[in-house]
Amino acid sequence: MVVVLRPGTSQEKIEHLTRWLEEKQLIVREYQGGEQCVLGLIGDTAGIDVDMIRSLDIVESVSETREPFKAPNRAMHPDDTVISTFPGGPKIGGGHFALIAGPCSVESREQLFYIADKIQAAGANFIRGGAFKPRTSPYDFQGLGAEGLELLLQVKKETGLPIVTELMDIRSIELFQEVDVIQVGARNTQNYDLLRELGKLQNPILLKRGLAGTIKELLMSAEYIMASGNENVILCERGIRTYESAYTRNTLDLSAVPVLKNLTHLPVVVDPSHGTGRADLVPAMALAAAAAGADGLMIEVHNDPPRALSDGAQSLTPEQFAELAPKIFKVREAVQTCK
Amino acid sequence: MVVVLRPGTSQEKIEHLTRWLEEKQLIVREYQGGEQCVLGLIGDTAGIDVDMIRSLDIVESVSETREPFKAPNRAMHPDDTVISTFPGGPKIGGGHFALIAGPCSVESREQLFYIADKIQAAGANFIRGGAFKPRTSPYDFQGLGAEGLELLLQVKKETGLPIVTELMDIRSIELFQEVDVIQVGARNTQNYDLLRELGKLQNPILLKRGLAGTIKELLMSAEYIMASGNENVILCERGIRTYESAYTRNTLDLSAVPVLKNLTHLPVVVDPSHGTGRADLVPAMALAAAAAGADGLMIEVHNDPPRALSDGAQSLTPEQFAELAPKIFKVREAVQTCK
Amino acid sequence: MVVVLRPGTSQEKIEHLTRWLEEKQLIVREYQGGEQCVLGLIGDTAGIDVDMIRSLDIVESVSETREPFKAPNRAMHPDDTVISTFPGGPKIGGGHFALIAGPCSVESREQLFYIADKIQAAGANFIRGGAFKPRTSPYDFQGLGAEGLELLLQVKKETGLPIVTELMDIRSIELFQEVDVIQVGARNTQNYDLLRELGKLQNPILLKRGLAGTIKELLMSAEYIMASGNENVILCERGIRTYESAYTRNTLDLSAVPVLKNLTHLPVVVDPSHGTGRADLVPAMALAAAAAGADGLMIEVHNDPPRALSDGAQSLTPEQFAELAPKIFKVREAVQTCK
Amino acid sequence: MVVVLRPGTSQEKIEHLTRWLEEKQLIVREYQGGEQCVLGLIGDTAGIDVDMIRSLDIVESVSETREPFKAPNRAMHPDDTVISTFPGGPKIGGGHFALIAGPCSVESREQLFYIADKIQAAGANFIRGGAFKPRTSPYDFQGLGAEGLELLLQVKKETGLPIVTELMDIRSIELFQEVDVIQVGARNTQNYDLLRELGKLQNPILLKRGLAGTIKELLMSAEYIMASGNENVILCERGIRTYESAYTRNTLDLSAVPVLKNLTHLPVVVDPSHGTGRADLVPAMALAAAAAGADGLMIEVHNDPPRALSDGAQSLTPEQFAELAPKIFKVREAVQTCK
Repeated sequence: MVVVLRPGTSQEKIEHLTRWLEEKQLIVREYQGGEQCVLGLIGDTAGIDVDMIRSLDIVESVSETREPFKAPNRAMHPDDTVISTFPGGPKIGGGHFALIAGPCSVESREQLFYIADKIQAAGANFIRGGAFKPRTSPYDFQGLGAEGLELLLQVKKETGLPIVTELMDIRSIELFQEVDVIQVGARNTQNYDLLRELGKLQNPILLKRGLAGTIKELLMSAEYIMASGNENVILCERGIRTYESAYTRNTLDLSAVPVLKNLTHLPVVVDPSHGTGRADLVPAMALAAAAAGADGLMIEVHNDPPRALSDGAQSLTPEQFAELAPKIFKVREAVQTCK
Repeated sequence: MVVVLRPGTSQEKIEHLTRWLEEKQLIVREYQGGEQCVLGLIGDTAGIDVDMIRSLDIVESVSETREPFKAPNRAMHPDDTVISTFPGGPKIGGGHFALIAGPCSVESREQLFYIADKIQAAGANFIRGGAFKPRTSPYDFQGLGAEGLELLLQVKKETGLPIVTELMDIRSIELFQEVDVIQVGARNTQNYDLLRELGKLQNPILLKRGLAGTIKELLMSAEYIMASGNENVILCERGIRTYESAYTRNTLDLSAVPVLKNLTHLPVVVDPSHGTGRADLVPAMALAAAAAGADGLMIEVHNDPPRALSDGAQSLTPEQFAELAPKIFKVREAVQTCK
Repeated sequence: MVVVLRPGTSQEKIEHLTRWLEEKQLIVREYQGGEQCVLGLIGDTAGIDVDMIRSLDIVESVSETREPFKAPNRAMHPDDTVISTFPGGPKIGGGHFALIAGPCSVESREQLFYIADKIQAAGANFIRGGAFKPRTSPYDFQGLGAEGLELLLQVKKETGLPIVTELMDIRSIELFQEVDVIQVGARNTQNYDLLRELGKLQNPILLKRGLAGTIKELLMSAEYIMASGNENVILCERGIRTYESAYTRNTLDLSAVPVLKNLTHLPVVVDPSHGTGRADLVPAMALAAAAAGADGLMIEVHNDPPRALSDGAQSLTPEQFAELAPKIFKVREAVQTCK
Repeated sequence: MVVVLRPGTSQEKIEHLTRWLEEKQLIVREYQGGEQCVLGLIGDTAGIDVDMIRSLDIVESVSETREPFKAPNRAMHPDDTVISTFPGGPKIGGGHFALIAGPCSVESREQLFYIADKIQAAGANFIRGGAFKPRTSPYDFQGLGAEGLELLLQVKKETGLPIVTELMDIRSIELFQEVDVIQVGARNTQNYDLLRELGKLQNPILLKRGLAGTIKELLMSAEYIMASGNENVILCERGIRTYESAYTRNTLDLSAVPVLKNLTHLPVVVDPSHGTGRADLVPAMALAAAAAGADGLMIEVHNDPPRALSDGAQSLTPEQFAELAPKIFKVREAVQTCK
């Protein structure tokens, strides 16, 4: 970290600040230029409140020379992380592509098995489905709960597809022990107590970017999970909140894919369904995400979108998904073979 | 709710949609104009997925004629809600003004009692202080926890100031039974399981707007608490995330004050400390909030901001607070006497 | 347009509003439901101030049933518009792909001819270059002006590449008569006097989305040009302003591509250079844009990016561009052949 | 400016960069710390492309130690600028408060004189009115043009109120010679050619913040005018574009008032009419702006808002304005007397 002091700062004040920083176990180097003094801080600056230093009278600016996240940092771990599910099951990252599909909510055994069959035939290698649903209104359908989870485990048994499903309440963590990939939704990205508990498991965690979360916050939330012991974190771009809301529910930030691939070794998945909120935009955005280098896609598929109990507006039909999947593979191939 | 169909929609499709809506217990009135058919829906439309209807081929637009929130709606409850703390204690709303001050984090007994003394002398009628702190980094100070809560209860006993403190983890709800006002932080505004649990208590809840939350989402989160039985909800504007971040941490949305006062009967409090992230902007924004009609203010005060263990950058000193408080009262008076 | 009135509105007030609307040459149909009255407006509602009607006491909501833009509307013109440059020159739209490349600013004859040679060899079919540059600071390099334009016309003569260059000042419009594609920059997207003047020409206009412009505003600005007589408008997505600015200068909104392709018949080009502000993100975003269905790409290429007089940070080297171009064609092929 | 290099950068590369910077007439000081090399740049860094340096392989971060704007910088000019209109006319800044009111558009002689009379009686000391109007749709009312300007000059003659009106087209600048305060609208804040021309006049310029403009961009635009010779610039906060658009058209950023008062010596005016887009929010936001320390307010007043030819939704009636004005003065007094 580099702290630039205002011109004319007295030597006494410089020494006072230096002592305070040294108390924090940092080595402080003082550089005197023609008109300014600069302090270079060496050591572990993670515990320093940058905003506070920035607010001091004598400080002109503070420059953080290191990213604040550690465990997810590619600098610490240059190779891509490859995340496994069960033995022999599909993997994510380092060239392994996850095509995750399924209904927003698990509604019934029939529905789930029907969709599972269709998406598997089309090329999906994971199934998603919500058992516990976060809904903006307390009066909306909140999911089948434990019964939904049970149906997912059954469909996994029958099809061999690993399941991806969302955990909302820290108290229901035990129910999720056999879940292959536990999803943390956009409203819980900064629910730190939940992240810490998930860090005690070894199940892969699919961590969604917050509703209006920054890339740095996403990586800091990954740090919470990893710092507690679970390194199996998958990051998910799912659209951010911007002023443009007339034609899309969120703005899918696909530049987050190459940015993240550069900053971190963790796999990056894109959810074009929530990312746009509109089924007719999903195919174009799924192909774009594949072209941008995503390690996976998560796409909502519903047998009867207009009757879906949640998020019907953004679900593809099984037929639309079957048409899209081969295009996704073809785009991936085009991007890879010419690398 | 009014559903406008595309010109040329076949009568068969109109009937199909009408039947589907009637299955949802709605009365559907069909209006035929020169070039368009409009369906008016009468009844409880809360369970209808508007986005889904909007996405149908035959639908041109959907117009929601009612706000989706009920319990907080001023239409249901024209008078301002007045929220009480303990018998004889200060109230909030309906003309009762809450001046809440105190440190971001409770750091020690000495610190807390010193600040309590100072802010009470200056005119504060509530004390705030964090015992459990949500921090972006897992390596930052996370608060004193239960010990901090205990210190807050002691300071209340000695000063008579009701306490405001944040609950983060649903599992620690029992520790908060004697807390006068339980704060839900911006990262938990849509932690619906937590909101439902808080709805089972009767303690007043200070609900912060999400980091990038809409006004409607804030009211829907209040609905979660109220629908579970607790009507003592205080809303808090604390700055929203915008593209402008060079000079302020958040953009304090003061227009939310008159908007909320119009939409809801619940009291509205403003937090200019988090809302700007900079101590030097707090006085101007506190006065502006008072002029805009806020029912209260929540201001961070720390005895030694540069050494504060969290958010030092935005804390006032006790002296700065003592200078600000009488101006706040004077502005309130100016606004009220000329009404 | 459908106007939903508040329950209980008196018949007198309904008639008053109806008369006022009829004065505007609209046919008003009144629909009475159980609890509400709805007015359907038939005719040309383009001149109605929707916000004003929305603000009336008796109005609950207004639903616009038609997009406010006309000339760019695909409903009026179902086939893709194909825009031509000079006879025998490249086209844009309707399957014709524009790969536009070149330096941010024209700096010298040598630089321009060198880059032109390189990009043409790599597959570019248009050359871009700024002669007049909008710079945030009055002290930054503002372009070579008329001399730069002259160099562009020379390079066109030698290479046969049509040129794309930005017009800033309405007073210099005469200088641009021989420019193949006149660019309107993001800061001028709503400079209506300029748009009207450009509407009097027949040169193709590349219209960039505003810095924080909505899709609707972009189409309304296209309307200004088209309403004045010039139908040769190319739309350009170039990144929007969001809260995420730590890792990208703008957020490239690729979902705008399928949204626009659906709403309008005009060609849609993407500028990943300004859209991200970082050269290392340009390849991934260029491929993503091609996969999303863009009709063209505009990419900055500079022989020596660190010494570029403007926007060096986002320019590719000719070598990087030569590596990228074939991948772009391959992705386009992958997307098209599987359609 | 301070440039922090990546650990392990070779001495050769450091020297190469140093030489390049020295070519730009900068003095470069090299500071070697335990793990990093830092370059301090002394001299005029205004011409350096910070983003370009930031993008170099060997650079970890760049810290700008000086604000990029000069003429508006309070550091250069500690006292508030006071801007005069005609001799004996009202002033703005340095304690002089401008209460600017009037219709969005000048519609007729009668309308203008009627409103002028009412607002002057209520305490306004400037009259505003649009003669040339920027409208999103080419089919909307675009103002009376030169005839409207003429009416404004007449009303000034009769009432003595200085006039504030918007200039859109650089070619009509001559028509504005007698205008007391020339307004630059939010869509033209970065129309640099226009700003340069206005810099050649001496009329005060009211410069609105861009639709989604940053505070820094606003000050850089002021720099354009001042660098061309006109120091009479008034800054105007008019709401910014955010994701919250359900209840307000823009988000009025009142924290910009104290931020600007700190950064610059220029007067700062607030426009709560455009800033909220809703007449019912204007009084609360006008009072809040006064409390926040604004040097003036610009408020739309119309004799018959529902029939206004533009922006009727946000206009107060003369009666509402007459009720509001004394409250504004009272809040100002409250804030000042207790300073």
